[in-house]
Amino acid sequence: MKLSKPSDDQQPTHRIVIVGGGFGGLYAAKELGRSQQFDVTLIDKRNFHLFQPLLYQVATGKLSPGDISSPLRAILSRHRQVKVLMDEVLDIDPQQHQVTLSSGTLPYDTLIVATGVSHHYFGNEQWADVAPGLKTIEDALEMRRRIFLAFEAAEKETDPEKRRAWLTFVVVGGGPTGVELAGALADLAYTALKDDFRSIDTKETRILLLEGVDRVLPPYPPDLSAKAARSLEDLGVVVETQTLVTNITTDAVTVRQGEQTRQIPTKTVLWAAGVRASKMGTVLAERAGAELDRVGRVIVNPDLSLPGEPDIFVVGDLAHYAHQDDKPLPGVAPVAMHEGAYVAKLLQRRLQGEDLPPFRYSDAGSLAVIGHNAAVANFGWLKISGFPAWLIWVFVHIYYLIEFDNKMIVMIQWFWHYFTRKGGARLITGEEGKLNESEFTAEVERDRTLIR
Amino acid sequence: MKLSKPSDDQQPTHRIVIVGGGFGGLYAAKELGRSQQFDVTLIDKRNFHLFQPLLYQVATGKLSPGDISSPLRAILSRHRQVKVLMDEVLDIDPQQHQVTLSSGTLPYDTLIVATGVSHHYFGNEQWADVAPGLKTIEDALEMRRRIFLAFEAAEKETDPEKRRAWLTFVVVGGGPTGVELAGALADLAYTALKDDFRSIDTKETRILLLEGVDRVLPPYPPDLSAKAARSLEDLGVVVETQTLVTNITTDAVTVRQGEQTRQIPTKTVLWAAGVRASKMGTVLAERAGAELDRVGRVIVNPDLSLPGEPDIFVVGDLAHYAHQDDKPLPGVAPVAMHEGAYVAKLLQRRLQGEDLPPFRYSDAGSLAVIGHNAAVANFGWLKISGFPAWLIWVFVHIYYLIEFDNKMIVMIQWFWHYFTRKGGARLITGEEGKLNESEFTAEVERDRTLIR
Repeated sequence: MKLSKPSDDQQPTHRIVIVGGGFGGLYAAKELGRSQQFDVTLIDKRNFHLFQPLLYQVATGKLSPGDISSPLRAILSRHRQVKVLMDEVLDIDPQQHQVTLSSGTLPYDTLIVATGVSHHYFGNEQWADVAPGLKTIEDALEMRRRIFLAFEAAEKETDPEKRRAWLTFVVVGGGPTGVELAGALADLAYTALKDDFRSIDTKETRILLLEGVDRVLPPYPPDLSAKAARSLEDLGVVVETQTLVTNITTDAVTVRQGEQTRQIPTKTVLWAAGVRASKMGTVLAERAGAELDRVGRVIVNPDLSLPGEPDIFVVGDLAHYAHQDDKPLPGVAPVAMHEGAYVAKLLQRRLQGEDLPPFRYSDAGSLAVIGHNAAVANFGWLKISGFPAWLIWVFVHIYYLIEFDNKMIVMIQWFWHYFTRKGGARLITGEEGKLNESEFTAEVERDRTLIR
Repeated sequence: MKLSKPSDDQQPTHRIVIVGGGFGGLYAAKELGRSQQFDVTLIDKRNFHLFQPLLYQVATGKLSPGDISSPLRAILSRHRQVKVLMDEVLDIDPQQHQVTLSSGTLPYDTLIVATGVSHHYFGNEQWADVAPGLKTIEDALEMRRRIFLAFEAAEKETDPEKRRAWLTFVVVGGGPTGVELAGALADLAYTALKDDFRSIDTKETRILLLEGVDRVLPPYPPDLSAKAARSLEDLGVVVETQTLVTNITTDAVTVRQGEQTRQIPTKTVLWAAGVRASKMGTVLAERAGAELDRVGRVIVNPDLSLPGEPDIFVVGDLAHYAHQDDKPLPGVAPVAMHEGAYVAKLLQRRLQGEDLPPFRYSDAGSLAVIGHNAAVANFGWLKISGFPAWLIWVFVHIYYLIEFDNKMIVMIQWFWHYFTRKGGARLITGEEGKLNESEFTAEVERDRTLIR
């Protein structure tokens, strides 16, 4: 397998291998693609970049997978010295400066690892089948399938108790993903679907958002958390904080609130409670002595390199960067983009014998959308909520979508849905309607310390 | 399971059960939904209507599944006396006037069966794994996965012979679907992807369209077939007529042309050669004595009812209607729509003690698209090809898409793609990149009489 083409001129080309085509890896590749001196290979298991912040809209049937995905090759097609390889990295050899792929080995001068995180059940991996998480397109389609099948099952069900269980949706985790999912479910049940059924009234749908700590959106200031909770309640979502999930089966979620334990009968549980680093973290620990934090993220130097390995960098959600403020930088897209671009600039400078000051993330603000016309935004000096925050949210997301792939189409779809409150991609696809009916009995308390 | 709600007034409501939410069933439901006297239940295994004429655009990564699918409930939401049931009909009992569903039984006064056809391998069902057909969303996503994986595999392959096999695409069947697929593949390989790869030149892609009879688009007049073939060749497609496929394996297609037998090394074969009636045809034969034609379609009366069963109608692709011209009506969307609407009108008239003359299909013309700016149109009195035909094709399809679900979004996407020649939904999803590697050895000659 020929992977590195020989350079034509005298000066040997500096070979950079980037693992992962998310926000971190892609921004590094785009920035490096501007220089002629590098030979860049971007490796990803998938052939597309996923605009993960909008994945919840696929899960709730508003957008199609294609609307939030762009082929990596298309994004990078004009960067002629950037090569895209659809492959999986199985191992890293820092001594030999090479990575092992499923189809061979590939040498590097500099390695950038940006493989992100996946969702995680804190030792209750048996919950994965009954409470799907949301990290991949396939995850989103599985959520979509379960959500719409639940309404179909409720329409056919005549037992009032069972019907109520089909019309009860429980979202576990009150971070941005959980808040967005709960809000989108409310839009769906109370507006988009309200005329579509004959035996049920979708307005009777119950949507519960469960959070372990004392408020939703814990990374935000308390007053914005309170506003988010109020907005959710206005939409019809039941917000329950200080609520620990102790068990999930195909028929119910068991929760503990203080000393009280209670069962919530439900057929649909969506998991938005926590993440764990992808397995490249472990590979870096074993092969390059990387130190990992409690969720497996790689602790990095102030320049995002690995301690003791100046030719290996870690960016994005996989990196634990603790050189700014007292806590690590959050696992959000803007941090990953800035980190990817920083490493690219650092490498460009180094080629000219120069250096860069340590990485610093300048937080432009955080945004979380709740539902139609409702969001919260925190710019530090300014905290806003409601319609103005929602408008900012829409424009920021469109800006980034267009930057990647001219996805004006999403803007137009939103515009359309905004006025019709209908439309979207409410398909049930996949294994024609079969629900997983396996039962789980393990009663393990959720590790509350890992809840963000 | 409560399926038929009691009517409030004195006069008993006439219960109509429609099986299948394709063009035939949906048009019947929409028309019947205008009358207050009917209690209509539309049953489909899926929760959406699929705009099948554009399925090839999903298979080739131009549109997303959601762009050509609309939830049946949403389409029929304003028809309050039409109920949608996501379920499967397992059996029909004409004596008891009821259908058996997977979730119970449902009585009817009138039954309309519109379950269509699926693709078919003429006794070579073992080809299904190596040469996927195109009838469902899942079929289209499987084709899309294989097409884009083939380019990815070619990019990694260093053996020139194997690389050529990855870059060879064989479309079996020169009817409308085969012509559309081959043309779309040419657009993809020679335009959309041309800058995306580094090791291969996608312009070296070979696209072969194989047809058993002596010309493509056999239902069209010979001069339009010739123009279609010329348009395909202009796009870069190799058209081979009078070519019988005798075997398909994971590495090659074996064809016979006259006395000559030849192997075409290829890793990607797309099946567009033939269809067979869905299994409801067999159920009607067993339960209601229906007579079936060679491909299992149900032979119907001049009013589309089943001979001997005045309360059962068959519409759409499943119906073999031979009371007009010398051959059965073609299995295309306009025929299905007209048939569905006819039966609905007939039932409305009968309720008033009136009748309707036998069904007559007034052919407004046929259209087949070949590629960017190329199509053929046959209006009987007028035959056109090239850009004008393509423009008509675009407007006709947009008209029907908008009629169903305000899918203006597709028009905008086309507009966008037309000028950029890029964009679309070129995702590889599903079982992350695994190709089926099973080998087939059966060498059975294809039944040429069934090739349209």
